[in-house]
Amino acid sequence: MAEALKIGIAGLGTVGSALFKIIETRQNMLAITCGRKIEIVAVSARDRNRDRGIDMSGVAWYDDPVAMASEAGIDVFIELMGGASGAAHAAVKAALGRGLHVVTANKALLAAHGVDLAALAEEKGAILNFEAAVAGGIPVIKALRESLTGNTVSRVYGIMNGTCNYILTRMEKEAMSFEACLKEAQRLGYAEADPAFDIEGNDTAHKLSILTTLAFGTRIAADDIYLEGITNISLEDIRAAGELGYKIKLLGVAQKTATGIEQRVHPTMVPVDSVIAQVDGVTNAVAIESDILGELLMVGPGAGGNATASAVLGDIADIAKSRPGAQLVPSLGRPALQLEPFVRGEIQAHEGGYFIRLTVEDRIGVFASIAKNMADNGISLESIVQRPSETADELARKTVILVTHATAEHAVRKAVAAIKSEGYLSGEPQVIRIERPKAG
Amino acid sequence: MAEALKIGIAGLGTVGSALFKIIETRQNMLAITCGRKIEIVAVSARDRNRDRGIDMSGVAWYDDPVAMASEAGIDVFIELMGGASGAAHAAVKAALGRGLHVVTANKALLAAHGVDLAALAEEKGAILNFEAAVAGGIPVIKALRESLTGNTVSRVYGIMNGTCNYILTRMEKEAMSFEACLKEAQRLGYAEADPAFDIEGNDTAHKLSILTTLAFGTRIAADDIYLEGITNISLEDIRAAGELGYKIKLLGVAQKTATGIEQRVHPTMVPVDSVIAQVDGVTNAVAIESDILGELLMVGPGAGGNATASAVLGDIADIAKSRPGAQLVPSLGRPALQLEPFVRGEIQAHEGGYFIRLTVEDRIGVFASIAKNMADNGISLESIVQRPSETADELARKTVILVTHATAEHAVRKAVAAIKSEGYLSGEPQVIRIERPKAG
Repeated sequence: MAEALKIGIAGLGTVGSALFKIIETRQNMLAITCGRKIEIVAVSARDRNRDRGIDMSGVAWYDDPVAMASEAGIDVFIELMGGASGAAHAAVKAALGRGLHVVTANKALLAAHGVDLAALAEEKGAILNFEAAVAGGIPVIKALRESLTGNTVSRVYGIMNGTCNYILTRMEKEAMSFEACLKEAQRLGYAEADPAFDIEGNDTAHKLSILTTLAFGTRIAADDIYLEGITNISLEDIRAAGELGYKIKLLGVAQKTATGIEQRVHPTMVPVDSVIAQVDGVTNAVAIESDILGELLMVGPGAGGNATASAVLGDIADIAKSRPGAQLVPSLGRPALQLEPFVRGEIQAHEGGYFIRLTVEDRIGVFASIAKNMADNGISLESIVQRPSETADELARKTVILVTHATAEHAVRKAVAAIKSEGYLSGEPQVIRIERPKAG
Repeated sequence: MAEALKIGIAGLGTVGSALFKIIETRQNMLAITCGRKIEIVAVSARDRNRDRGIDMSGVAWYDDPVAMASEAGIDVFIELMGGASGAAHAAVKAALGRGLHVVTANKALLAAHGVDLAALAEEKGAILNFEAAVAGGIPVIKALRESLTGNTVSRVYGIMNGTCNYILTRMEKEAMSFEACLKEAQRLGYAEADPAFDIEGNDTAHKLSILTTLAFGTRIAADDIYLEGITNISLEDIRAAGELGYKIKLLGVAQKTATGIEQRVHPTMVPVDSVIAQVDGVTNAVAIESDILGELLMVGPGAGGNATASAVLGDIADIAKSRPGAQLVPSLGRPALQLEPFVRGEIQAHEGGYFIRLTVEDRIGVFASIAKNMADNGISLESIVQRPSETADELARKTVILVTHATAEHAVRKAVAAIKSEGYLSGEPQVIRIERPKAG
């Protein structure tokens, strides 16, 4: 049997502690499947004295993760600290700079510095693995990087934030308001005290930017993403969606268009009988559409200490089974220096159906005016529903719900702007894009 | 860049021809992602003169695949001939015997000889890859073999036969009979002229036996599978399932029980709002339940020339990225010689719910007798429906549908046998197992 693989873990929070325990208790099993022992020889975390329920005797302790990355006698540096820059970034750079392999679960770090880190890894002949960074336990990185070799991807999309999906699911199943569901999510530990990063879509955007690079071979462009969170999704939207045969999910979508790559994160209506519509609660799902394979959909736990640790362990095992000097899988699917520049495909050109909900004055001519404005912009309608507004103090108002056939986004924007200028709207129009899975 | 990887393809049917075209037309893309060129230098098939729409000039032709495996100047032997023994088996043995890497899509071969072939590969330091053998384009082999390292799997199950799922889906959506749907499937090329191998569950059983080995580390036991096909599923069953909130799918299920590993293939009722229930038509799905990761579900194309070729190409790419002397991933998840013996867990011990459909004489006391027989065997009922039989010439008969709570199979069998002996049944009782996904 080959020599043991020596690893150092930086960050002993939920994921780090879970990983430590799993490796310590499954030594034999891991040695059999990996062909060598996996040995934790160093750890680093903020507080040495916190009780984590793990026995760290015989393991070197480092207060400073950068020192561990620079000095410890390890083969693999496991980064589970988090944060786009600072210590995590410095430590990973130091580790790769020494030629150590690195496994990280840190999406923010990759979104910000992924290309540079991949280039450094390749220069040093090191492996940089990050399966846990996107959609937790779902092996989507491996699917894009390895299984889909030779495929041209046309679209990748998914539910990549458990907090948002939990909230949307509860709103739908229990007719609870957004605010009430968010509180429940916080109480259960599914949402942070400051939930903005999740519910405004930034977390999904980070993950999406990594998938885009693997799918399309372009440089990571985490800031070049159209972003819309779920904070203004009302129960009325969810109910109307249900009546029309849709569910609302926060999707991250990246796809090739005539002008470039379109990256967008926004609430989306998906057909109620599609597979992805059944993905409820904190579960994640990622779909990949490609020209040879067709559509592949993967559903699984997107977060949690164990699921994330499992993905990290899979990455470590891949390293254990490799050997110095072996031909390496490029971290980002192709060599970092051969990634193409990211060219933003304008969402204005996005073709798809739209759900539009308007609250209008209940007077003659309004309905005709709405229909005319849609027609003037060449938008054909799949369905139109008009009914009394659900808000009790607005009895003089009506809700109008339009579902369009496939149409370009700029046409919808123009039509909605024109309708706004007519003066009979109350409140902001709600516009939700419809996404149709190719298969499943 | 490393030297080109030289491959030989044996079998130029739908999959082989698709693979040939893909590799020829995507040379540059493959060289970038694999770090070296992939070069087809030899092929073998039955008829040299058949027009396959591919240009084989400059490629060595072999009439005999075993000769190609034994003599051609190749690094990888690609087996796409099919068949559990004969030429495919001889050729793969010859290739591995020379230390060539092998990629195969041949589930029957693996079900029959997988352990011996894996042992031979390991002895010779060769890679044996077979992602395409189970669930076509879905990367389930990679997930079990690599991503789930360190996990203890408790259950793996899935829809692994497109023919059956197509038939069941059409029966459900269009209220067509089994026979009519089978004819449609044959007309569309989704079913063979002799469909027995698919519709009686053997194809699913082969695939399941491979998953069992990867999931539980036991030797392949393709003959040790409880097998029940879809031929006796009636429209009445499908309709009753729908009314009770279930869909019927042909599942292959392998799970750990107290007595061993239970392998079974049979029509199964799954809750209508589960993700797997939405997997329609020829699409496949595989779910893996494990202790660290949780539940992972993968959905995608289970067959077809391109989807299968994509999986084969992924396997070839993995070999291209490796290097002789590298620590190898054991083909079956752990070294073949360390696989444990397969111990059959008796399905008698299976705990789950059951759907039971009986056609009975319409007379006083029958219903009470059925209820008593269930109670006598300790079976508690979730729902009971009684209604006129759907068959017009049996107006004097009633249909009784029972759904049990979780109960042991032997209790159900005893109860049904007792009911049969009462003499008021007409025709055979229909018993369909209910399976509940852990999540999703």
